[in-house]
Amino acid sequence: MQNPTAAMLVIGDEILSGRTRDANMHYLAQELTKQGIDLKEVRVVSDDAATIEAAVQALSAKFDHVFTSGGIGPTHDDITADCIARAFGAHIDIRDDARALLEAHYEKSGLELNAARLRMARIPDGATLIDNPVSTAPGFTIGNVHVMAGVPSVFQAMVASVLPGLTGGVPLLSQTLRVDRGEGDIAAPLAALAADFQDLSIGCYPFQINGVFGANVVIRGTEGARIDAASTRLAKELGL
Amino acid sequence: MQNPTAAMLVIGDEILSGRTRDANMHYLAQELTKQGIDLKEVRVVSDDAATIEAAVQALSAKFDHVFTSGGIGPTHDDITADCIARAFGAHIDIRDDARALLEAHYEKSGLELNAARLRMARIPDGATLIDNPVSTAPGFTIGNVHVMAGVPSVFQAMVASVLPGLTGGVPLLSQTLRVDRGEGDIAAPLAALAADFQDLSIGCYPFQINGVFGANVVIRGTEGARIDAASTRLAKELGL
Repeated sequence: MQNPTAAMLVIGDEILSGRTRDANMHYLAQELTKQGIDLKEVRVVSDDAATIEAAVQALSAKFDHVFTSGGIGPTHDDITADCIARAFGAHIDIRDDARALLEAHYEKSGLELNAARLRMARIPDGATLIDNPVSTAPGFTIGNVHVMAGVPSVFQAMVASVLPGLTGGVPLLSQTLRVDRGEGDIAAPLAALAADFQDLSIGCYPFQINGVFGANVVIRGTEGARIDAASTRLAKELGL
Repeated sequence: MQNPTAAMLVIGDEILSGRTRDANMHYLAQELTKQGIDLKEVRVVSDDAATIEAAVQALSAKFDHVFTSGGIGPTHDDITADCIARAFGAHIDIRDDARALLEAHYEKSGLELNAARLRMARIPDGATLIDNPVSTAPGFTIGNVHVMAGVPSVFQAMVASVLPGLTGGVPLLSQTLRVDRGEGDIAAPLAALAADFQDLSIGCYPFQINGVFGANVVIRGTEGARIDAASTRLAKELGL
């Protein structure tokens, strides 16, 4: 049986301009891998309504799950919720359940729940709220799309709220062998190994440290015994 | 006049599995912004031939430039060059100019130029080589697609080889104002500012440090005087 598949959509001009370095992709990739959900594609797009809408529709049709990050705050450039609603043809407005969460939060904090903050209660009809233990304003799930904040601490809390509710697959296991030789020296035994272990994925990731070339060979699969067998054979062949 | 547009295609299972944290996207984003080329989209895809080919065709048709990273080494999982050739309907084989570079390099280093390493001389017909001062094996440009290595030091060297040859646009300038208040407090003046300065892009990027919420307001545009004017007005309104 195949694992569920997923895509991520990162929304934000600040990533594409190089001002901000995205931190959420790496985090989500690791969490999905642990749960046996295969992250197949990531797209980073700008804060442009038509672009966001088209990307959500394309990814939602192609993968079991889509996770978005960014653009659900209170300011004028936070347009994600409305774009997602349009992508699903869903009506969107301030929703009572989300408003109640914000009212309780801002009452406690003594801050005003002004018109801008109320925008964070705009949730499409039919969507389920995603809990935000960090700063209250919720994310939401509509169809197979999970809409989350871009601030890393909030994104991570929302991922922790969403993932336990999703059906996972068989977690991907891996072993890494570090080889202090250029990739070109080990390419032939690696190719032979990959041919003999077609149920595994054998990746070779070169690095360069202080002018010396080496490679990490990563053997991935779902059966530990098979990974052990491949790893043992390769270590022997390479004299590791 | 509009700036040239660009997309980046990051190729590699190791990014999607969370094993490796991509470093090239952020670097390229910054370099393109300096040169006035607008990075509009990034896609990260797995080492799957059909997926790579389709992504290259889609991005190449949509943007002025496409930059790829990853998958041009000597091992069996390095399939990028062949995928790009197919995407352009170009013949690919070991090419004499690339082979000559590798021969000289491996002769000097005393390493064998074996069959695996020779794969790095596979270059599509009609492509222009991209210089690799770090480890010799070249990248290439075909059509509007620039094919580069995934190892960050090599990727950066190749970007430095390619960018000076491209026609840039007007570099994007920016000013950042840090506001130690929640976004919700400043959303209204920000929206008014954005409405009055439609030639600028006003972004609001919240952060949370030690439980305190704040935001960086980034004002971007191509005319320094306009950015100054917007920044001065906002600082005054917010009492910064």
